[in-house]
Amino acid sequence: MNIKENQEKAIDLFSRAPMKKTFNMILSYNQEDQAIFTMPFDQKFCHALGSMHGGVLSTLLDNAGWFTAQPYYENWINTIDLQVQLLLPTSNKSLVSKGTLVKKGKAIAFSRMEVFDEDDLLIATATGTFAVSNKKF
Amino acid sequence: MNIKENQEKAIDLFSRAPMKKTFNMILSYNQEDQAIFTMPFDQKFCHALGSMHGGVLSTLLDNAGWFTAQPYYENWINTIDLQVQLLLPTSNKSLVSKGTLVKKGKAIAFSRMEVFDEDDLLIATATGTFAVSNKKF
Amino acid sequence: MNIKENQEKAIDLFSRAPMKKTFNMILSYNQEDQAIFTMPFDQKFCHALGSMHGGVLSTLLDNAGWFTAQPYYENWINTIDLQVQLLLPTSNKSLVSKGTLVKKGKAIAFSRMEVFDEDDLLIATATGTFAVSNKKF
Amino acid sequence: MNIKENQEKAIDLFSRAPMKKTFNMILSYNQEDQAIFTMPFDQKFCHALGSMHGGVLSTLLDNAGWFTAQPYYENWINTIDLQVQLLLPTSNKSLVSKGTLVKKGKAIAFSRMEVFDEDDLLIATATGTFAVSNKKF
Repeated sequence: MNIKENQEKAIDLFSRAPMKKTFNMILSYNQEDQAIFTMPFDQKFCHALGSMHGGVLSTLLDNAGWFTAQPYYENWINTIDLQVQLLLPTSNKSLVSKGTLVKKGKAIAFSRMEVFDEDDLLIATATGTFAVSNKKF
Repeated sequence: MNIKENQEKAIDLFSRAPMKKTFNMILSYNQEDQAIFTMPFDQKFCHALGSMHGGVLSTLLDNAGWFTAQPYYENWINTIDLQVQLLLPTSNKSLVSKGTLVKKGKAIAFSRMEVFDEDDLLIATATGTFAVSNKKF
Repeated sequence: MNIKENQEKAIDLFSRAPMKKTFNMILSYNQEDQAIFTMPFDQKFCHALGSMHGGVLSTLLDNAGWFTAQPYYENWINTIDLQVQLLLPTSNKSLVSKGTLVKKGKAIAFSRMEVFDEDDLLIATATGTFAVSNKKF
Repeated sequence: MNIKENQEKAIDLFSRAPMKKTFNMILSYNQEDQAIFTMPFDQKFCHALGSMHGGVLSTLLDNAGWFTAQPYYENWINTIDLQVQLLLPTSNKSLVSKGTLVKKGKAIAFSRMEVFDEDDLLIATATGTFAVSNKKF
């Protein structure tokens, strides 16, 4: 298995995801093999009080966790649990999420994730649990 | 406090939320004072494998929990924790989420939430924790 | 597979668990195939303020979820995620926990659990995620 | 507020907790103001398969989170949510848990926690959410 190759495959996969365009997210990997997602502020994802909806932050967090973990596996993984902590409301700032692989188990992967705003303020954190399927990635 | 009045206020509030139009969600309350959100299938919220993104399911779940709990309070509440379990992939089906108030504490509210598809298949469940602020709703 | 037979196997298994005696828990199953654990109050599980420690409530919840789900499977299952909501402090009361199987997946089981005190006050709730192993139960 | 003074107060508090003796846990703080709990292996906390019960790991994690966060506050805090990921079974090893304060909010504190065994193997991780009460610590 080649993690870097799998990361390229994941970037290619994400480029074809319909939700990529909808949320206007960009995926890259840093040198520590962490998936990094950036998303510009868009008022259309705000709730009535003008801040980004927690579900949109969850989307950023889920992505960061899944795309960090997937390249470590030969088979597809599926998100099964996502635990989100919303630390601060955010508005009018672009956002960045980052994933960290906590445990690469044979059947289960665990990640933790963070969302920062463009000023490096920590907005939300999460943990994700992913089940390894028996279908080749 | 009048829960029904607060529910109308919440429906009015949601009608002005920018994310309402983006996700095309509709809010109503049933006779058990549970917030019900419906959302038609839209391919633009799918990931590369063609199923609805878990973050979009999280958005439905977060809404169901928050809008169920808020009418019980005179002050604004804020989502602080959201724990999501993704049971089944879903595609090409409209979705419905429903909230249940588990505990109306003085400072903290707890809800649990479910997403069903149009065939009544259980797609995802969640628990949500909400902090009661000191600002009047 | 026979769920009732597996429940008897699980009760027998629990009778040999060292932690059973330590926590003084008793396991039974109700007619809806829910695992029920009872535990008398014991001051030795209290924190410095005199209430039952949240970790002990987590133990009751974990057990209720695992023992509810296990009998549905031919293979051993392992708890991988446990999400606990602590609703109320409790002291001087015996406790009862109860599990509900939310989803019997092929590779993953999801339960939700509750702890009540002897007066039927809801003390804590949880969700649990369990991975199905390839070892025969 | 003096964090170091509050840590001494917390150590004193823990020394009087009935559950301290039951679980045989020792609390200290490191130079980064993280609460560290150690616990020797004791077979009486094992489940029927001979590994430490997840609820006991949850107890270690809850403690690490609460005791890390409490000294940052003048008022008592209460654990409201605990999300536990069980990475590996553990047996016959002493355990160490460690907390990290993720966010010191006015009303809510967020911590993350880890349990390692004596060989520095990561056994379990968690996130905790704590509500700040209006009673003086």
